[in-house]
Amino acid sequence: MPRFALNVEYQGAPFAGWQRQKDQPSVQGAIEAALARLEPGAHTIAAAGRTDAGVHALGQVAHCDLVKEWDPFRLSEALNHHLKPQPVAIVAAARVEDDWHARFSAVERRYLFRILMRRAPATHEAGQVWRVNHQLDVAAMQRAADLLLGRHDFTTFRSSICQAASPVKTLDELRIEPVAGFSGPEMHFHVRARSFLHNQVRSFVGTLERVGAGAWTPEDVRDALEARDRAACGPVCPPQGLYLAQVRYPEPVFG
Amino acid sequence: MPRFALNVEYQGAPFAGWQRQKDQPSVQGAIEAALARLEPGAHTIAAAGRTDAGVHALGQVAHCDLVKEWDPFRLSEALNHHLKPQPVAIVAAARVEDDWHARFSAVERRYLFRILMRRAPATHEAGQVWRVNHQLDVAAMQRAADLLLGRHDFTTFRSSICQAASPVKTLDELRIEPVAGFSGPEMHFHVRARSFLHNQVRSFVGTLERVGAGAWTPEDVRDALEARDRAACGPVCPPQGLYLAQVRYPEPVFG
Repeated sequence: MPRFALNVEYQGAPFAGWQRQKDQPSVQGAIEAALARLEPGAHTIAAAGRTDAGVHALGQVAHCDLVKEWDPFRLSEALNHHLKPQPVAIVAAARVEDDWHARFSAVERRYLFRILMRRAPATHEAGQVWRVNHQLDVAAMQRAADLLLGRHDFTTFRSSICQAASPVKTLDELRIEPVAGFSGPEMHFHVRARSFLHNQVRSFVGTLERVGAGAWTPEDVRDALEARDRAACGPVCPPQGLYLAQVRYPEPVFG
Repeated sequence: MPRFALNVEYQGAPFAGWQRQKDQPSVQGAIEAALARLEPGAHTIAAAGRTDAGVHALGQVAHCDLVKEWDPFRLSEALNHHLKPQPVAIVAAARVEDDWHARFSAVERRYLFRILMRRAPATHEAGQVWRVNHQLDVAAMQRAADLLLGRHDFTTFRSSICQAASPVKTLDELRIEPVAGFSGPEMHFHVRARSFLHNQVRSFVGTLERVGAGAWTPEDVRDALEARDRAACGPVCPPQGLYLAQVRYPEPVFG
């Protein structure tokens, strides 16, 4: 059966997360249902990152096996037709080798986290940013973020239900960028690694926000990392500012 | 009674427009209901621009008369509390003179229109942009837009139900800017005038889109303007890309 890679964008708000669940809407379930409209029967797709409830994607990658040798562009158009009106879109599709795997072949994940800094509730970005009432000191946050770069035991920044075999990961980038947002100043966190622990990005951002607000020093973040203790983590921030931005493979998949 | 100006941001999607209606949700109705939570009784507010169903605001301005001498910041916070969870936010409030009027004192309105150019359906910007399948020629569109600048009889670009006394208006700016959007390339139309006719911006954008797509020439737009005939207009574009961006007054109101 020919295998296809799908580059997927979605809003997380209406879904209980990526992963298919019996009684709740999921992104995986929505795409599998659309596939069943193209080729009847049960479909099971695999994804590079199983995003939590409320988490969005700009560039999730999944793969599916189909009977027909679809033209990739027509496949994406047909899936988008059946996905409507759900906020899920196949932005690209590609034919891949039979042993190519969206999760296991991936060599890098990039996440984006958006904080909107203002008093008034978010309207246009409701559910798409974490709004904080105060300004954030980007220089202090970046000093703290730099202390997290490289290979570490990230037990402090790992959910207690994380299923990864080891808490040791290599963090390749954690860059914080002030951005003039559509309805107010934003802070964008660009986070890059081969793979992540469960809740790692939200644990980073929640802790660094404390530094930006002046409640923690960068050294407090180093101490928290070195404690290798979940209890040493700052508050885990809410999911709605988080986006799976990009997944990379040894060979570019979508051209 | 002290009069207050409100700087209002909203998503248009859930509302039948700005104006209060008996049986449908409106932005005016939502704010008046919030005011009634602060000071019991009927409230009637006036706005600088009565936006249509589906049209958004970044900087709508309204005014209200209250009994109490509210601190403007506390007033905005209290209104935002009662407006939740609707996508309407008071981003600023200010005490104004008794004869100051959100609509009649305004000397300039600015609108933004967003086009998202891509094949796949919009997800993060669903309902917040007009998505078109094709690329647009910004230089050709700008040449056509320049022909609309200045004082003209804009009958061609005016809804047949427009209630303005005269179709003659002065267009001060119609600038088209390519923008690297959050999930694809966007085209932003910045439109500025003292006041507008009903559907004028959407008539401009729908017509200019035809130029960008190559179906019309800039000279066709001049001919349409000079025809002073509604039938000469290009297609009126959908409302969901339109934002009332800013309203200006002789003296700045919100500092």
